[in-house]
Amino acid sequence: MPLFQVYKLYFSPQRKLVKTLKNLLGFVPGNINLYRMAFRHRSVAVSLKNGVKSSNERLEFLGDAVLGTVIAELLFKIYPYKDEGFLTEMRSKIVSRVHLNQLSRKLGLDQLIEFDARTVNFPTKQGSLLGDAFEALIGAIYLDKGYEFTKSVIINRIVNPHIDIHTLELTETNFKSKLIEWCQRHGKDFTFELIANQEDEHTKLFTINALVDGEIVGQGRDFNKKNAEKLAAEKACQTLEL
Amino acid sequence: MPLFQVYKLYFSPQRKLVKTLKNLLGFVPGNINLYRMAFRHRSVAVSLKNGVKSSNERLEFLGDAVLGTVIAELLFKIYPYKDEGFLTEMRSKIVSRVHLNQLSRKLGLDQLIEFDARTVNFPTKQGSLLGDAFEALIGAIYLDKGYEFTKSVIINRIVNPHIDIHTLELTETNFKSKLIEWCQRHGKDFTFELIANQEDEHTKLFTINALVDGEIVGQGRDFNKKNAEKLAAEKACQTLEL
Repeated sequence: MPLFQVYKLYFSPQRKLVKTLKNLLGFVPGNINLYRMAFRHRSVAVSLKNGVKSSNERLEFLGDAVLGTVIAELLFKIYPYKDEGFLTEMRSKIVSRVHLNQLSRKLGLDQLIEFDARTVNFPTKQGSLLGDAFEALIGAIYLDKGYEFTKSVIINRIVNPHIDIHTLELTETNFKSKLIEWCQRHGKDFTFELIANQEDEHTKLFTINALVDGEIVGQGRDFNKKNAEKLAAEKACQTLEL
Repeated sequence: MPLFQVYKLYFSPQRKLVKTLKNLLGFVPGNINLYRMAFRHRSVAVSLKNGVKSSNERLEFLGDAVLGTVIAELLFKIYPYKDEGFLTEMRSKIVSRVHLNQLSRKLGLDQLIEFDARTVNFPTKQGSLLGDAFEALIGAIYLDKGYEFTKSVIINRIVNPHIDIHTLELTETNFKSKLIEWCQRHGKDFTFELIANQEDEHTKLFTINALVDGEIVGQGRDFNKKNAEKLAAEKACQTLEL
């Protein structure tokens, strides 16, 4: 980027954002508007023509894909002798909403997100807000600087300093404990409920609901009862954005 | 690539594959072993050290991510005023197993896939086999030639000649008709079964099974009965690899 453009950016009304991004990611943004959009929650969406609202949701869609690809390649190369089931599970752990929220907070993105405090119940809803902005930021970097650049930012600025892949490998994501813990903290009741137990001559299929204060927040279905509970708990964590 | 390497590849035992790929994709492969792996179904997996089997499944994992990213960016740019819900749905249509199978056949990949005819029930199971090899091929190109190259192959050799995005936009994927049609063709019975209908003071939640010859092949759950059926039919199409 020519020096005068860098100069212009540093002294523009967005200079605080430019400086923060420079410190955070190690580069000067090209198109600062992309990054502003990445931090714009839908509660403060800007109206475009045709009544379309502009927030970070489209960038989040793109960033989610880019992040998934970079992590897929990384795992493919770190684990040459593991099958695709293992790779898929490892990637899910890395890009889970819970993990992206933590990363987002570590990186200090919570300080950059614009949202309407009257309608968004921050911090109880912050989970989704933080992870979404993280993905949108990846989308913005991709559009601004291209794939190879984004890949190197993800690996050098995010994965290497903040993610311990080999520890994650040993961590089993326990959605049931997470859910029970959350319910205890918020004074809510938690139960599983077996709603269907179909049998035919060969199989027994369990359908299980996860209920919080009597309200269905997740459902799981499996031939193994424990697995059906696990799936129900995982869905419940997604619903509650834990 | 230096000329002598191209020469070597053309006259190697893999020269048929090299030539086919050159015609198909418009470039000479660098590392031909990646492409051989892309077409190796797990029924003919090669044993590596540690008893690990090498087939196209790891490349499929990678290619699925790369394809998803390229299509995400393409849609992001074609539809600047559509929200992420629309973009997600459009991408699902393009990368659906059904659509990738068709593409794979159009490209002639069915001629290149190695599989064990004694254990793989081809062509009834060909759906998954074809789409998987297609994604694995994308993974191979990515590792061989990098992201930008793969993106241009996907757009210029696959999307532009073979995918009519604006027609896809108007197509509603009707899983129920697809399922009924398949059952009629194969002389099987098809029914929906309402297995649970939970009510509380506000809501009525429907759980519906899709049954083929009395066997559960999919389940859907929604507050709207029609939607629960749609979801069950979609799951059933996945199960049956339609």
